[in-house]
Amino acid sequence: MKAVLPDEKIPKFWYNILPDLPEPLEPPLDPETEKPIEPEKLLRIFAEELVKQEMSRERYVEIPREVRELYAKIGRPTPLFRATNLEKRLRTPARIYFKYEGATVTGSHKINTALAQAYYAKKQGIERLVTETGAGQWGTALSLAGALIGLRVRVYMARASYQQKPYRRVLMNIYGAEVFPSPSDRTEVGRRFLAEDPSHPGGLGIAISEAIEDVLKDENARYSLGSVLNHVLMHQTVIGLEAKEQIREFEEPDVIIGCVGGGSNFAGLAYPFVKDVLKGKEEYEFIAVEPKAAPTMTSGVYAYDYGDSGRLTPKMKMHTLGHTYYVPPIHAGGLRYHGLAPTLSVLVNHGIVKPVAYHQTEVFDAATLFAKAEGIVPAPESAHAIKAAIDIALRAKEQEEEKVILFNLSGHGLLDLKGYEDFLEGRLEDYEPKEIPVLNGLF
Amino acid sequence: MKAVLPDEKIPKFWYNILPDLPEPLEPPLDPETEKPIEPEKLLRIFAEELVKQEMSRERYVEIPREVRELYAKIGRPTPLFRATNLEKRLRTPARIYFKYEGATVTGSHKINTALAQAYYAKKQGIERLVTETGAGQWGTALSLAGALIGLRVRVYMARASYQQKPYRRVLMNIYGAEVFPSPSDRTEVGRRFLAEDPSHPGGLGIAISEAIEDVLKDENARYSLGSVLNHVLMHQTVIGLEAKEQIREFEEPDVIIGCVGGGSNFAGLAYPFVKDVLKGKEEYEFIAVEPKAAPTMTSGVYAYDYGDSGRLTPKMKMHTLGHTYYVPPIHAGGLRYHGLAPTLSVLVNHGIVKPVAYHQTEVFDAATLFAKAEGIVPAPESAHAIKAAIDIALRAKEQEEEKVILFNLSGHGLLDLKGYEDFLEGRLEDYEPKEIPVLNGLF
Repeated sequence: MKAVLPDEKIPKFWYNILPDLPEPLEPPLDPETEKPIEPEKLLRIFAEELVKQEMSRERYVEIPREVRELYAKIGRPTPLFRATNLEKRLRTPARIYFKYEGATVTGSHKINTALAQAYYAKKQGIERLVTETGAGQWGTALSLAGALIGLRVRVYMARASYQQKPYRRVLMNIYGAEVFPSPSDRTEVGRRFLAEDPSHPGGLGIAISEAIEDVLKDENARYSLGSVLNHVLMHQTVIGLEAKEQIREFEEPDVIIGCVGGGSNFAGLAYPFVKDVLKGKEEYEFIAVEPKAAPTMTSGVYAYDYGDSGRLTPKMKMHTLGHTYYVPPIHAGGLRYHGLAPTLSVLVNHGIVKPVAYHQTEVFDAATLFAKAEGIVPAPESAHAIKAAIDIALRAKEQEEEKVILFNLSGHGLLDLKGYEDFLEGRLEDYEPKEIPVLNGLF
Repeated sequence: MKAVLPDEKIPKFWYNILPDLPEPLEPPLDPETEKPIEPEKLLRIFAEELVKQEMSRERYVEIPREVRELYAKIGRPTPLFRATNLEKRLRTPARIYFKYEGATVTGSHKINTALAQAYYAKKQGIERLVTETGAGQWGTALSLAGALIGLRVRVYMARASYQQKPYRRVLMNIYGAEVFPSPSDRTEVGRRFLAEDPSHPGGLGIAISEAIEDVLKDENARYSLGSVLNHVLMHQTVIGLEAKEQIREFEEPDVIIGCVGGGSNFAGLAYPFVKDVLKGKEEYEFIAVEPKAAPTMTSGVYAYDYGDSGRLTPKMKMHTLGHTYYVPPIHAGGLRYHGLAPTLSVLVNHGIVKPVAYHQTEVFDAATLFAKAEGIVPAPESAHAIKAAIDIALRAKEQEEEKVILFNLSGHGLLDLKGYEDFLEGRLEDYEPKEIPVLNGLF
């Protein structure tokens, strides 16, 4: 079963959760002064409209017509499916729906904010966007956004991924982006790490630092981030706003599920439903799923921390494992992050969103079952949400409950088949994190 | 711009071109007797309902409800897009529409017939389907169809692809299929080739022979073919039947384009429009695009030939390069075939469908331009249709004509990024076929 969306119900506004949060966000701190950061400093890094949106108290922000046209071009509205075959295989009385963001042309939800960020940058006269990428989903999305809108794009990609996952890089090159392995010799930060180790594998933290340093050297460039920040999560709410209209054609969900790295695909689906809970109108259950190898919500602390290991970003109050935490090399590259979106951190603190963590072997097991039942091979990141959905459906079976489950299938796994091969051939490792800096007083 | 399809317009019948062809098809010949083959022999190879459909004179054949439900599950109806950004980049007055079959969960049109074939086999009580695969699109589609319908699937995959393109194999394994490198030691044909060369790279011809031999040894198994035959092309007409409703929301096409290997995606889009031309109701132009490395339509002959190099299949009257023709290793693996669907051969003979051939470098160039403009990275096969659409759009610009172009984007290229890498790095070779058996009296 597949629900589409009639034209008149396609969202024209994003939903901004800031005015509805149960407590105000703590301000980001300047990494040099440890005081609330001056907007001028942010304007040198981000496009102006995005800085405004980051602080905005407006509940609904209009999606520009040009961005809505681009949303249609890249495959929005995405379909909402009912996983009838999975239900049958589980013999559960639960009804399982999923929003399929893998149906966009770059194969994940990341394009939703990439297009918005590129649009505002172009409007401001900016010529180039610079970013980092880990697994490559975000770099791919921003590269395409640049091609569609007419902006140059430069991506710093962790050297290990650059070498071991060449196809994401090829994809970015097809879209016309420049891709550099990080650490590179193009920045001071990069050269410092290369001096330590000429074949340094790199990491998201270093790549962020290189991207920001690059931007600070070029007046016509700005930095783009693919998760964590308020404006990014807001752009993603197009997912949940569509899903709400689509699922209501059939029924109301009881449980809403998403996987969490920085938090953007989770927030994208969930926040428009969270709104109704915050206003006392509905009683949905929200499950945020993270990997046990990066247990930000289930084992981290709520504290001010940097967004990168190079300490160049503003400090944010969030759930964190510590910016020096080394995330083990799980296949779900998009969930390998030490921190969590500040807004989502608040919702977790208030018990509105419940976190759960899984090991990657059980996640790939769920992913394979899902693929056989529904045909879609999920990204390892998104498969975390599937694992949680299956667990809840099995619990509903035990308790003979007709639960209605909705989860976000944030991307397909067609560029992650190496992980599946490792799983099918019994080579997959699980990682129990041993050294979490925040728990050992290391930061 | 994206057109969906309201529920009431979703096709409930496939279109069978046989009763409308300008001349009757010549019968397939028994490879042993050289006489028209007895249906009983076909029934041992194919599911019964498919043998009936192969000969059927019924113009519209009902799509079983179960198959229609599965079509919805795998992403049908697929979207029809207008390539507005490509039009702008070309500065053409032409309007370019494309039907996007890459939106299905296996990423190509092949699933349309795979589901139908698996459905009829299951209904008949068959337990296992056996097939061959070259590029892997067809094997992937049949593997998923087996998983969804509850049939075992066995795939013989050319050894070179099995080793060099492991990810298609992983995809089939995820769906639960058995995949063997061909030539294998499981069949006489396979052992014969292995005896000649223990590391034989294999090929589609050998793999077909192995699949058929496998089926003949197991009463509960049947063979499945992914193109060429009438029933396969008929199942694909769901593409064109949807597209007709979708494009008519805007306008009538002037030119209809598809790439051609065996002919199934071309026929799928075109035949429902060909019908109107055959009945004198409309005057569309049809362009069938093939690679210069396998120029079946532009350089082959119209003659009886085998479908495989092992001479196990019935002989069919078709355009062919000769069953001993070695197709050079172009990246568009799905177009590496020596023959052509008999029905399409008749339409080419009558001048209703016009063939054109391109080299792979110019095809990848068109594909990259398209990806930058529209976001979708096309399969190298489908990119042949894009190249033709671009050429026609540029001619329309010269002649200041408002042509309406419709082409089939039969699949995405996310598992073909190696070809793009070779193209971007200038390593791509073009092949001028030198030894075409039929032209040299070699068969």
